[in-house]
Amino acid sequence: MEKLTSPSMFIGVQGKGIISFGSGQPDLPPPKEVFKILPAYRSFKYGLVQGQINLRKALSKDYKRSTENDFLVTNGASEALDLAFRVVGKPGDRVLIHSPYYYTYPHLVKSAYLEPVITETSEGKIVLEDFEKKVRDCTAVLINSPSNPTGRIQNVKTLKEIERITQDLNITLISDEVYKDLIYERENYLLSGPRVVTINSFSKTFSMCGFRVGYLYSSDSAFVERATALKTFTSMNTNILAQEMAYEATKVPKKRIMNELKIWKGRRDLIYNGLAELGLDLWKPEGAFYVLPKIKNPRKFVWRLYKKYKTITYLGEWFGAPSRVRFSYALDASKIEEGLKRVKKCLREI
Amino acid sequence: MEKLTSPSMFIGVQGKGIISFGSGQPDLPPPKEVFKILPAYRSFKYGLVQGQINLRKALSKDYKRSTENDFLVTNGASEALDLAFRVVGKPGDRVLIHSPYYYTYPHLVKSAYLEPVITETSEGKIVLEDFEKKVRDCTAVLINSPSNPTGRIQNVKTLKEIERITQDLNITLISDEVYKDLIYERENYLLSGPRVVTINSFSKTFSMCGFRVGYLYSSDSAFVERATALKTFTSMNTNILAQEMAYEATKVPKKRIMNELKIWKGRRDLIYNGLAELGLDLWKPEGAFYVLPKIKNPRKFVWRLYKKYKTITYLGEWFGAPSRVRFSYALDASKIEEGLKRVKKCLREI
Repeated sequence: MEKLTSPSMFIGVQGKGIISFGSGQPDLPPPKEVFKILPAYRSFKYGLVQGQINLRKALSKDYKRSTENDFLVTNGASEALDLAFRVVGKPGDRVLIHSPYYYTYPHLVKSAYLEPVITETSEGKIVLEDFEKKVRDCTAVLINSPSNPTGRIQNVKTLKEIERITQDLNITLISDEVYKDLIYERENYLLSGPRVVTINSFSKTFSMCGFRVGYLYSSDSAFVERATALKTFTSMNTNILAQEMAYEATKVPKKRIMNELKIWKGRRDLIYNGLAELGLDLWKPEGAFYVLPKIKNPRKFVWRLYKKYKTITYLGEWFGAPSRVRFSYALDASKIEEGLKRVKKCLREI
Repeated sequence: MEKLTSPSMFIGVQGKGIISFGSGQPDLPPPKEVFKILPAYRSFKYGLVQGQINLRKALSKDYKRSTENDFLVTNGASEALDLAFRVVGKPGDRVLIHSPYYYTYPHLVKSAYLEPVITETSEGKIVLEDFEKKVRDCTAVLINSPSNPTGRIQNVKTLKEIERITQDLNITLISDEVYKDLIYERENYLLSGPRVVTINSFSKTFSMCGFRVGYLYSSDSAFVERATALKTFTSMNTNILAQEMAYEATKVPKKRIMNELKIWKGRRDLIYNGLAELGLDLWKPEGAFYVLPKIKNPRKFVWRLYKKYKTITYLGEWFGAPSRVRFSYALDASKIEEGLKRVKKCLREI
């Protein structure tokens, strides 16, 4: 069991009979339009470090009062976050993160020589009193709503308060909104303000994980310039072909997203009800495709479920939630049902 | 003229009549085989952070006694270098660089909170006495042979001494060999040893700049693991399609490289003789596709050549060579000839 080290141990693990509630990889394919350009594609030269202009112009249509200059196209949201942390402050500066958090956040913050500060949530919701107290010593805040791993969204009232507090204090508000198109309860609320940096990606909405196209958006032009200057040294342009594929994705009618949302919601209901029926203590997912039930002896559960029942789940401990286990439901309903049966058996044994 | 800030100001500048001795982008296209896989390509999921196994296995054939585990596939050589510097030491540690250097090196070193230490070269050749004196305080050394911007290679004897000195002192030797297949004088000498980290790329040999596929190779498995762990947070897998294209490139017969080398050598002779005939003080390029002549009042020259003669060159100052100007000859012979005429006129005026 000491072998349960991090989510990366399960990357690429597949085989007959394995059911994976592990990876955050949507199983639904990308829109077919993104592959249509491939046969005739022949470009090969360096592109603009900031990103292809057609893609940035298309993105700017989704953000009020923005222009293509406000965007930096990156190797997925991961690189956008990495660049943001590397330019946001100086070594030793603090970054406020709400817990449970996506497992890479503390690593990214620390690898930029910044210090993560944690605010615990209540049922996945930010507690403003604690937030406001801790934020004052911070250079930046990282918000992730909908959240990986909780599937919870922050209330609009809370998000507005966070905008007000951070912008009044001149603190950079980094908002990882990669699940913005996967919310079951309401429209996404885009955090905004002069010191807001939005992170997004084509990985979740368009299932383009492997192509690694993300972006950073901010009306703070100095911030975008600093991040672009750093990327000039650290990776240059994002793959030019992937950017063209992402551009094609921006032209796909929005109703595709709404149709997929229905599928996701069906799966959400299935796994939420299924786990609740097993008597587990859990929060209802409101977005993304994760659920984070409390489980007794989670290390033993995750290990046995994997070794005996060929079913992958992730330790909540990796996400700052040591008494919980993360289930991704980015898989077919029939597999979710079969997986729930295995979970039931495994829980009985422990 | 104060507008001459960095090479990035010229990225994407093109238009009627412009001749660019600027960018390090080969004009010759990639092998057609890399595009052949596009029409049928449909994968979209996350790949292994370390890189696709078929590509790493193919790479391992080029490096004696290596296995696929010794490679990390990256977003170009740039990301490989960035990851290497970020894991090689702790803030304040020193990295020895030979000057003139590729303009991003000091930035990359500093953005990892390391301190660049410079050893000046003589006609582009490392001076071992100075090297040996300065290296003792360093955590790592960065060697770039053939060199961008000088086009010079280091003598094999020098390279062997550098191997001996660094490996005896347990100093990490990072060798940026992206121009290894573009040497006019001899075969490449692969720096090797237990603490050697080789950086390479598909950008120059296969003209695949825009696709951003590079790699890091080392027999130091702990180093490869640290770099891979960092990339798990900072960008995840390199674009999966670009990796398949790179894999196709590895299967192209080596004689393609030899044929292209003849073209490059012809261009080298053309620009070297042309600039020498203009009476410029310069070193004969032995590899890559750059030449770095001494030019009086370089800032005035670069600016006027650009504004009046629509010809792009890069200030040597950006590469640690303030009395020189860098010419890339990655363009057609007819354009090199026309460009030389413009240079002649411009020099007369200054």
